[in-house]
Amino acid sequence: MSKIIGNSLPSIPWQDKPEGYKKPVWRYNSNPIIKRDATSISNSIFNSAVIPYKEGFAGVFRCDSRAVSMDIFTGFSEDGIHWNIEEKPITFLGDDQEILKREYRYDPRVCFIEDRYYITWCNGYHGPTIGVGYTFDFKTFYQLENAFLPYNRNGVLFPRKINGKYAMLSRPSDTGHTPFGDIFYSQSSDLEYWGHHRHVMSSYKGDASAWQGTKIGPGPIPIETDEGWLLIYHGVINTCNGFVYRVGSAILDLEEPWKVKYRSRYYILGPEEYYECVGDVPNVVFPCAALTDKDTGRIALYYGCADTVTGLAFTTVDELIQFTKEHTF
Amino acid sequence: MSKIIGNSLPSIPWQDKPEGYKKPVWRYNSNPIIKRDATSISNSIFNSAVIPYKEGFAGVFRCDSRAVSMDIFTGFSEDGIHWNIEEKPITFLGDDQEILKREYRYDPRVCFIEDRYYITWCNGYHGPTIGVGYTFDFKTFYQLENAFLPYNRNGVLFPRKINGKYAMLSRPSDTGHTPFGDIFYSQSSDLEYWGHHRHVMSSYKGDASAWQGTKIGPGPIPIETDEGWLLIYHGVINTCNGFVYRVGSAILDLEEPWKVKYRSRYYILGPEEYYECVGDVPNVVFPCAALTDKDTGRIALYYGCADTVTGLAFTTVDELIQFTKEHTF
Amino acid sequence: MSKIIGNSLPSIPWQDKPEGYKKPVWRYNSNPIIKRDATSISNSIFNSAVIPYKEGFAGVFRCDSRAVSMDIFTGFSEDGIHWNIEEKPITFLGDDQEILKREYRYDPRVCFIEDRYYITWCNGYHGPTIGVGYTFDFKTFYQLENAFLPYNRNGVLFPRKINGKYAMLSRPSDTGHTPFGDIFYSQSSDLEYWGHHRHVMSSYKGDASAWQGTKIGPGPIPIETDEGWLLIYHGVINTCNGFVYRVGSAILDLEEPWKVKYRSRYYILGPEEYYECVGDVPNVVFPCAALTDKDTGRIALYYGCADTVTGLAFTTVDELIQFTKEHTF
Amino acid sequence: MSKIIGNSLPSIPWQDKPEGYKKPVWRYNSNPIIKRDATSISNSIFNSAVIPYKEGFAGVFRCDSRAVSMDIFTGFSEDGIHWNIEEKPITFLGDDQEILKREYRYDPRVCFIEDRYYITWCNGYHGPTIGVGYTFDFKTFYQLENAFLPYNRNGVLFPRKINGKYAMLSRPSDTGHTPFGDIFYSQSSDLEYWGHHRHVMSSYKGDASAWQGTKIGPGPIPIETDEGWLLIYHGVINTCNGFVYRVGSAILDLEEPWKVKYRSRYYILGPEEYYECVGDVPNVVFPCAALTDKDTGRIALYYGCADTVTGLAFTTVDELIQFTKEHTF
Amino acid sequence: MSKIIGNSLPSIPWQDKPEGYKKPVWRYNSNPIIKRDATSISNSIFNSAVIPYKEGFAGVFRCDSRAVSMDIFTGFSEDGIHWNIEEKPITFLGDDQEILKREYRYDPRVCFIEDRYYITWCNGYHGPTIGVGYTFDFKTFYQLENAFLPYNRNGVLFPRKINGKYAMLSRPSDTGHTPFGDIFYSQSSDLEYWGHHRHVMSSYKGDASAWQGTKIGPGPIPIETDEGWLLIYHGVINTCNGFVYRVGSAILDLEEPWKVKYRSRYYILGPEEYYECVGDVPNVVFPCAALTDKDTGRIALYYGCADTVTGLAFTTVDELIQFTKEHTF
Amino acid sequence: MSKIIGNSLPSIPWQDKPEGYKKPVWRYNSNPIIKRDATSISNSIFNSAVIPYKEGFAGVFRCDSRAVSMDIFTGFSEDGIHWNIEEKPITFLGDDQEILKREYRYDPRVCFIEDRYYITWCNGYHGPTIGVGYTFDFKTFYQLENAFLPYNRNGVLFPRKINGKYAMLSRPSDTGHTPFGDIFYSQSSDLEYWGHHRHVMSSYKGDASAWQGTKIGPGPIPIETDEGWLLIYHGVINTCNGFVYRVGSAILDLEEPWKVKYRSRYYILGPEEYYECVGDVPNVVFPCAALTDKDTGRIALYYGCADTVTGLAFTTVDELIQFTKEHTF
Repeated sequence: MSKIIGNSLPSIPWQDKPEGYKKPVWRYNSNPIIKRDATSISNSIFNSAVIPYKEGFAGVFRCDSRAVSMDIFTGFSEDGIHWNIEEKPITFLGDDQEILKREYRYDPRVCFIEDRYYITWCNGYHGPTIGVGYTFDFKTFYQLENAFLPYNRNGVLFPRKINGKYAMLSRPSDTGHTPFGDIFYSQSSDLEYWGHHRHVMSSYKGDASAWQGTKIGPGPIPIETDEGWLLIYHGVINTCNGFVYRVGSAILDLEEPWKVKYRSRYYILGPEEYYECVGDVPNVVFPCAALTDKDTGRIALYYGCADTVTGLAFTTVDELIQFTKEHTF
Repeated sequence: MSKIIGNSLPSIPWQDKPEGYKKPVWRYNSNPIIKRDATSISNSIFNSAVIPYKEGFAGVFRCDSRAVSMDIFTGFSEDGIHWNIEEKPITFLGDDQEILKREYRYDPRVCFIEDRYYITWCNGYHGPTIGVGYTFDFKTFYQLENAFLPYNRNGVLFPRKINGKYAMLSRPSDTGHTPFGDIFYSQSSDLEYWGHHRHVMSSYKGDASAWQGTKIGPGPIPIETDEGWLLIYHGVINTCNGFVYRVGSAILDLEEPWKVKYRSRYYILGPEEYYECVGDVPNVVFPCAALTDKDTGRIALYYGCADTVTGLAFTTVDELIQFTKEHTF
Repeated sequence: MSKIIGNSLPSIPWQDKPEGYKKPVWRYNSNPIIKRDATSISNSIFNSAVIPYKEGFAGVFRCDSRAVSMDIFTGFSEDGIHWNIEEKPITFLGDDQEILKREYRYDPRVCFIEDRYYITWCNGYHGPTIGVGYTFDFKTFYQLENAFLPYNRNGVLFPRKINGKYAMLSRPSDTGHTPFGDIFYSQSSDLEYWGHHRHVMSSYKGDASAWQGTKIGPGPIPIETDEGWLLIYHGVINTCNGFVYRVGSAILDLEEPWKVKYRSRYYILGPEEYYECVGDVPNVVFPCAALTDKDTGRIALYYGCADTVTGLAFTTVDELIQFTKEHTF
Repeated sequence: MSKIIGNSLPSIPWQDKPEGYKKPVWRYNSNPIIKRDATSISNSIFNSAVIPYKEGFAGVFRCDSRAVSMDIFTGFSEDGIHWNIEEKPITFLGDDQEILKREYRYDPRVCFIEDRYYITWCNGYHGPTIGVGYTFDFKTFYQLENAFLPYNRNGVLFPRKINGKYAMLSRPSDTGHTPFGDIFYSQSSDLEYWGHHRHVMSSYKGDASAWQGTKIGPGPIPIETDEGWLLIYHGVINTCNGFVYRVGSAILDLEEPWKVKYRSRYYILGPEEYYECVGDVPNVVFPCAALTDKDTGRIALYYGCADTVTGLAFTTVDELIQFTKEHTF
Repeated sequence: MSKIIGNSLPSIPWQDKPEGYKKPVWRYNSNPIIKRDATSISNSIFNSAVIPYKEGFAGVFRCDSRAVSMDIFTGFSEDGIHWNIEEKPITFLGDDQEILKREYRYDPRVCFIEDRYYITWCNGYHGPTIGVGYTFDFKTFYQLENAFLPYNRNGVLFPRKINGKYAMLSRPSDTGHTPFGDIFYSQSSDLEYWGHHRHVMSSYKGDASAWQGTKIGPGPIPIETDEGWLLIYHGVINTCNGFVYRVGSAILDLEEPWKVKYRSRYYILGPEEYYECVGDVPNVVFPCAALTDKDTGRIALYYGCADTVTGLAFTTVDELIQFTKEHTF
Repeated sequence: MSKIIGNSLPSIPWQDKPEGYKKPVWRYNSNPIIKRDATSISNSIFNSAVIPYKEGFAGVFRCDSRAVSMDIFTGFSEDGIHWNIEEKPITFLGDDQEILKREYRYDPRVCFIEDRYYITWCNGYHGPTIGVGYTFDFKTFYQLENAFLPYNRNGVLFPRKINGKYAMLSRPSDTGHTPFGDIFYSQSSDLEYWGHHRHVMSSYKGDASAWQGTKIGPGPIPIETDEGWLLIYHGVINTCNGFVYRVGSAILDLEEPWKVKYRSRYYILGPEEYYECVGDVPNVVFPCAALTDKDTGRIALYYGCADTVTGLAFTTVDELIQFTKEHTF
């Protein structure tokens, strides 16, 4: 039995796997949990991050407005399923207006490290790069320097220092609908200066795992387990009618996370339901957060659907690790 | 209260705004009003124009055949909702076979000026340009010269002369799936020779109104109001999985219509329903006609859905102008 | 009355044409007949071929795994509608490992000639080309040489020698999502060396039949009739949101099949149903097999839907030939 | 013997055809006549227009500055070979700042009609279109409205009214390095409103005249002859290493100039010399002006070389017309 | 010492390697040997093939006309350096007009097998494919079937049967400026039906031999030696300013020529001289023929330069094989 | 009079400005100083860096081999004009094989800071990024971590710490022939961890300085002057026949170098000479190093020519700063 190294979360949202269901991840039966117009001016709410907070849950949500302006908003929930999302986007405090000036913000992740909640997101600064901020209370937010030079997306922090350094996964990109993309690992003593970058894994060229042949990118905060860091990530294939985004899993070495121990050739979740196949960008499932309960090994996975709504799915650490190892390259 | 400068149309199709509905435009509850196979050989009927005619309504419809040949057809309706569309495309009379020779025709608009109904459409003449014709009775049609050199789409007449000239909006293009496009204003004394072209507005580059970032084009005949010309137009964003067409609104100066007084950053209608998101070209709402009633300020908006069927939506001049001004850049 | 030159097949799957239905091909009312997860590890099952076998039916199916690895699998059915598909892909026997080495396999066709069942498919050999194999019993399979140099797709055999030669239709391509494509005819004495290639027909450039303007490719094994070879094929149009695949029909000369006697400007089947419009590749209907009964003239057409599931549709030889002749260029 | 319908120009620059030289156009033996840095801040001087003026010659020159800003400048010459080009670009007088506002200007033509010298050029107005101006003295210039909507290049006036209308050839384009382009004919009573557009000729698809397979565009002011309008134009082929611009000839009907009487399959001038093959845009010869002498039939052709310098070449009306007729399609 | 298995050719054109020159191939010091206008209507003469014939030499030349129409012409020479090229293109005799109909022809090779001279070339037949013909006397030419389905270029025969079969190398392609390309080997008993295709070698992805990273294609008829078939081929790199074509060498197994024994990482000839770098397609050296003398081991290499003129270079079998082995991957 | 803040270098290579020459930078009259085959196996030597060393000069040179493999080599010179370049590429010492493993290396810069010579270059590590190393003696080299995540090119260090930090300019890119590119500024305490990235300047969109409209990138080590950091950089325009690389100048604030004080609209050097216009990549001048003498203000600029050879040009700090200020935006 694989074990999560983390906290108990008895209130984790949960539904048991449907009888006879054979795949490693199953959907919440009332998906989507957040609809496209859950705020008064939203066009779509997706690719968002949640985390346990006080008695319940807090989150940072990507809400594109009906101007299709991309920004990030806080939200709160008692049960992790029903969410109240703020009408106004997050504003950050900080010293340097050069950094605070907003161009656009999207695809947030939230990571608790030591004493605070860090938020990373795709931040417009003369092109997309990784914005970094933090909060103690989801009310007041402080923005740090952008982690990297443009052009980058999907900056995902590890939930603790590794070898004495903060660590971040990311997917360097270009300025548009990038047709390539690998996952890299970067290190920092202070979350301001980053270096010692290491290549983690590439998109897969070949038939053996074609769903991740165009690009890949990290999803939720990696889950620490006794087998290594359980990484849930997205992979993309380029069909004649556009990109299809699916979800995969890998296990990274605990102390040298740029070393991939296992990586599943099979995706664990793909667009099949109406709300995943139909929307502003069809055929996208895009995971950005996972809740975990160390006692039961349960994992609740939050994912954007068709760049329009937010879905919830379930698995367990044991099932997912076993699946990943069984189907590894 | 904003006022329409135009005619009474007590028979305008109408449904009241659903209770609790917050957006400025609401859909007819039995959409689509015209299905893809409403004629015996049609593949799709969309991007079409209607106008009050006699006791009821007449229209010019884009019906792509099941050869996917694009042509325009007349149709008639008593209530503006249930339509009888001819099985044979419109044929035009005229002097010069060079102009009468049909290559393809699509996306018609209909505009009553002075004593007749003018039809404009995207007309194949060694590339797409703006065809112009007229009818008195929707039975006999006369074709004039093409308004412009290729390559152009979305020629939309104003319903009266302005400063003594006929006036037309259009969107110059290229020969294919044009990835750019602004709206221009052109003038003519005789509907044959056009000049004094003026730039009206551009697609918007930036996050503040990204839904119209790739191209824009005029939709229905502009609606004259005491605030200016109310222009309903389409805007396009280029996602990794293709174009999404939405609908926006702007108010142009009455006497110098190339001057934009207000322009909403927010779209007023986007593809959300099944018939708008799924079809031959997913994620398209494309407005080509509006009926108006000056007494009530009601507007009935006809729009193509997914390049497959025809939808109907409602708003009022007051609500739309207020929305446009409130959310202007 | 047109007649099929072939065998009786009283057990052919069949539903009568719905009353009032006007189009030449009608769908099975419980489509899709094969769902995406009909095998334990399949992502999608589509673009597959069936044939009468013993008392029932056998088939070779394209099942993409949940690694989105493309391979071909046998399946059996008593009624041609409910299918049992093997969990393991076909393995071929043969002499030369260079040829037997699998890169990827997709879009199979099955053709009975003389004494055995030939299978052709798109075979990865330093690029896509036409793989050829045969079986007597759908248990043991033998692989021959690839028919052609790369790059090619949609190799479709004729069910008998013509002028003393085996004959194959195919669609030469490039290495990716080919934006062009014509159908060619090739001849062979031994199914190993091919030559005397003849051009059959091109994609159609122009409005008169725009649905097949980008590329075309042969579908099921041509059906021999007293009017000629009835060829059901796919055609593609490139919209601003991707390719739409539809189905068309043509009649080729019996003895010189590279000569097209009739070719319908109208498609005979296009994506309209949910399962045809929504899936991994939206808006695809792709025919790969047809069952025929010479006594009744019935045709049961199997086609891939949205690159995800498999559908079934019906027509008769008489109706289809009449339609093709009536709407020929 | 073909005859020019025009003026005597005894001072036309001239060199006899070199002995043994077989082609219809021969180069000036001291080419280029204008070097890239002929003005103090020029990067390149090319694609320019000259005309007889008073005792000598005047011209309007495209001089790209060393900022690679594109503008047009006057120049004067006594012999048509040695030129003094102004250091400051042309400024235009006019009423409407909207039109006078300069974005960029390039590729001018000069045409004397009735009482004045008209200048047309590619004018930036929210994209390239055809600017129109005039001067009486090459000192004071007046700008009229842009002739057409964007996007257009190579506006070339005829030197007299035809059927009572001013007439202009042009090549509609897109916003970039347009990969297509045909020549059209447009008419106007007042040089402000244009209409009755007619297609003249297309780029040629096929091996028989591949040098003009990508796009074509009109060059100098058409030369009136007893055989029709002698049109010298440029044609482009797209090689794997970019566009090659060459020069061709055609003869248009005198009264219906959109009707092509003859058109040479062979180019009459192509990039062969160092200064034509090497420069900012290699492999470009681009004609913009021709001087003619009706007494001798001499033609002096001015053409841009490699988008860098200006060349001069010679032919006679008789030789060129004969060549055009001999090699017509 | 490596040895050519072939004929003596004492009259082979030759210049000794310049003193101090270190590279394996050296140019004729009066290059180009054939200028662009060597025939009365030629735009360029390049990518051509020569062979010993009677007391001197014969050849088949690609001459693009000044219409830039591509065709092949015979030529004769006493010394292999000074050539007389016919003014009229080759016409072929044959039975089937479908095959004889000329679309375009380019890049010929000539190969003597058994009793006659075979010509292969890139032949337009609904796209580029490999044309095949033969002659006994370079006066009367017979055309056979095209060897392959489109799309293909660079069909190069071996000078004898191998394992009882005729053998041909080729480079399958697409319809345009193909950005990929590998060399394949095909077999035939009769030069009409081809099969048993084998992959020979790919373009090289990586820094170690980047000059051949985009595509490769066979050049002259392979030279039989005691080390294997010496294959001189072209390789292409895609720079930001277009393709650069260079020349490389490989040694193929004598009996299984699809097996590469050695392949040089280094090119043996690249565009450096003016006539190789400047022309209709800059930066191209493209070898199509080699003369060899078994007594001295001399090799005279004919190559197209910048798609404009024809050059000649020299090496010896010993030097080239040694170089190839020394620098093999 | 502007002054260089730096060292005396009486031995700086120098030629006075030719009389009558008006541009701010003039070429060495025996260019190119390094030919393409200056080493035994080089295809081209360009985009290289030199620096005063001991009594003479040392350098790090980009030599592409005749495999077109890209690597960096040391070289030494007594006069800065005649260079001896090593036959073997630089090998680096270091701890982590992951970093030391060579993929490819190109476009080096050399910068003396404090006590050693730092080398930066474009380093292949799963895509192009900025490699960093140092040497004390140009014999033993040590490699540090890559400065940034891929994808980046043109990493250029400042010659001293600024505000207590090492500082580097760079140009983030994509994986290919990047069609965009701005200059950014990054900071580090230890040359291993980088952060506080600031945007410096963008390519210029518009006619006013079109030569730098596609992308820009830093060139030599910035030159400290009393006016600010004198930055010589390259700019690129995208013509229909490819990129043209030219050289520009800007002055950055001494203490906040991401603030641009002046930037010349005019380029200071463009491809005009044969060796700049003709070569493996035509029309490239690409500066990578500058020698300076504080006593005279002389600047000797080394630049790559056509990606083939190395050129030398001259200016003075006074002339260049004056020119930059005079022509600033």
